[in-house]
Amino acid sequence: MVNEIKVFEKPVGFRDLLPETVLKKRLIEDKLQNLFSQWGYQEILTPTLEYEETVGKASRITGNRMFKLLDKQGQTLVLRPDMTAPIARVVSSLMQNSPLPKRISYHTNVFRAQENEAGRVAEFFQSGVELIGEGTPDADAEILAIACQTLKKLELGSFKLVVGHVGFINALLEEWISEPDQRDELKLLLANKNIVGFQEMINRTVKSTAGKELLLAISNYQGDAVKLKTLLEGSRAVAVQTALNNLLDIWNLLKIYGLTNNVFFDLALVPHLDYYTGMVFEGIAENSSFPVCSGGRYDTLLDSFNNSNQAIGFALKINRLLDILKQSEFLEKELRIYYDLDHREEALRFAYRKRNEGFGVVQTYRVTEQELNQLQESNQNVETVYFVSGEGDTFAK
Amino acid sequence: MVNEIKVFEKPVGFRDLLPETVLKKRLIEDKLQNLFSQWGYQEILTPTLEYEETVGKASRITGNRMFKLLDKQGQTLVLRPDMTAPIARVVSSLMQNSPLPKRISYHTNVFRAQENEAGRVAEFFQSGVELIGEGTPDADAEILAIACQTLKKLELGSFKLVVGHVGFINALLEEWISEPDQRDELKLLLANKNIVGFQEMINRTVKSTAGKELLLAISNYQGDAVKLKTLLEGSRAVAVQTALNNLLDIWNLLKIYGLTNNVFFDLALVPHLDYYTGMVFEGIAENSSFPVCSGGRYDTLLDSFNNSNQAIGFALKINRLLDILKQSEFLEKELRIYYDLDHREEALRFAYRKRNEGFGVVQTYRVTEQELNQLQESNQNVETVYFVSGEGDTFAK
Repeated sequence: MVNEIKVFEKPVGFRDLLPETVLKKRLIEDKLQNLFSQWGYQEILTPTLEYEETVGKASRITGNRMFKLLDKQGQTLVLRPDMTAPIARVVSSLMQNSPLPKRISYHTNVFRAQENEAGRVAEFFQSGVELIGEGTPDADAEILAIACQTLKKLELGSFKLVVGHVGFINALLEEWISEPDQRDELKLLLANKNIVGFQEMINRTVKSTAGKELLLAISNYQGDAVKLKTLLEGSRAVAVQTALNNLLDIWNLLKIYGLTNNVFFDLALVPHLDYYTGMVFEGIAENSSFPVCSGGRYDTLLDSFNNSNQAIGFALKINRLLDILKQSEFLEKELRIYYDLDHREEALRFAYRKRNEGFGVVQTYRVTEQELNQLQESNQNVETVYFVSGEGDTFAK
Repeated sequence: MVNEIKVFEKPVGFRDLLPETVLKKRLIEDKLQNLFSQWGYQEILTPTLEYEETVGKASRITGNRMFKLLDKQGQTLVLRPDMTAPIARVVSSLMQNSPLPKRISYHTNVFRAQENEAGRVAEFFQSGVELIGEGTPDADAEILAIACQTLKKLELGSFKLVVGHVGFINALLEEWISEPDQRDELKLLLANKNIVGFQEMINRTVKSTAGKELLLAISNYQGDAVKLKTLLEGSRAVAVQTALNNLLDIWNLLKIYGLTNNVFFDLALVPHLDYYTGMVFEGIAENSSFPVCSGGRYDTLLDSFNNSNQAIGFALKINRLLDILKQSEFLEKELRIYYDLDHREEALRFAYRKRNEGFGVVQTYRVTEQELNQLQESNQNVETVYFVSGEGDTFAK
């Protein structure tokens, strides 16, 4: 049964962004794009609607989380559920011939259908970069360095990057647990950050003491690279050694960047999206319990677009930044001019001059008593000038 | 019958914007928002999806030109077909209590479903302003002044604003033509800018010589306000006199702004959208046959949201500006650094320093022969520095 819609309502999960917020968003995106171009990342913009068959499938977002519609040709379209898949499409087609590695940035909205309101947004904003055609630890460290610089530039206060690698959890679970269903369940517990649930299930299902100790240890560890080697001595899996060597390489590069104070390894970091193939990370600000950015290596995603290039990237969750960043630095100084018919020309010329001096100037003809009353309430960043007859002709308040 | 979709295809009418274009778009929007805030306009952002019942209907875009979908609650949603209706919704609800007049700006995408490719875009970009709660000629002139300043700031070369008023054509057609269908047909001819078709039909259908002369004369006139009075002497309609007085008031204000050289009155200017109630205009650049901006007064649109405020606004067609604005001023200088393992630290420190000096720096590990060959092709805005062993150790090219 469809309810009646009131005239001011918006669809479930959608919001209006008012001036203070949009100004903050614009300033954040400008800061980010400045930083991204310092690293040679070039911004692109892809369509809001894509075919379900191409980008929809490649994005690996569950079908019922996407907004779908039919176009006039009878094809199913989706509202862009992420930006990684569209960028994979562009670098494999229109930008196919630009030299490798390709560095791409974006600032845009993405969409997820919500069952009910409950505070979850259906349209949210992401800024990010993708580095395509480079599988080196140098590329991994570059992305972590950009993420660190980004969070510093945004003046979020103290923050940390938690860095993992999907190579560990897959190999370790295969080494110690024979049931694929149990492995999937354990990975889901980690993806949901339910560490206690993971540890309970490890205690229940892993027979080997060595295996139990190892898996419990990695679920408890968050720190530098030094202890990682000792921690993993109990594993014989080749993939675990490969992943370890990758993280140690990255650690050496982070030393050059001077970022080791901000980076903590956590082998239990498992992303929800299943397209990651290597290093993964999340950025956590001190005043937010949710990650403000996340990313990682996805060396096989471009296969969907017949492209064998390796790739890595990360995205900032702009909505969360809008929530936690303070407003004060974003206020603008404004001049308000009120004039009557006799002083129109004089007032408009004054406004013109002030605009050229860099002021934001609002001009209003016809000063009514109601308007004068409203002025009393206006905030301290507004200065008012009257060009009206009476009370000593033209005067500035 | 649904055709098979190839992996790189985009939906009909949708485009990828590549780095050069996105950079141009960002710089254009920054220029515009700077100008809009000088006039006190504050940017807002509304949802990409709206209810068909509310914003869909208020926008007055034909239903089959909108992208529609059902949400999980069974309601019909539309992709935002314009920004005037969403802004009308916001100023009547969330921003209801902010003082009048309200000055709102926006920079966003809007959507129109296309039957077939044929070069028509389905997603396009608009920047604009809306001035709400002000019915004076001062408000009309303010919008025209902002439009003029905008086109000057964009350095489009010479341009003109063609200004009309919907009060004329409705009143004049009612005065001389009794058949409502014929009046609609004539208005559509003008909206489609088919002046020859309009004149032929006037010659065929209007019996009175005075009426015929008058209607042919206004379809031929584009100029200043001085001759308008003489031109309209043949009409007795009150609405014609009201509209004329409005345009003469506006003309006096344009004199103060010093804009009379850029403004031409054209009473045959009839917009496609039927929500306009007063002054209407289009901005024409010398190097484009299509308008780059358009707008006008729409004093009754807000009624859909139980709001009796008068309003006026205009929007710039960003896609057309992207087509006609030159690229040259938008190129950025870039530094490329290639390094091998032995010089990694040295290279990364050099890159760090150069970024702090404001350069865009791309760093690449592992210089291969193929990469060196690609470098020969790179454009003159790229400077390259090598940190590699051999050929005299570290050297700058």
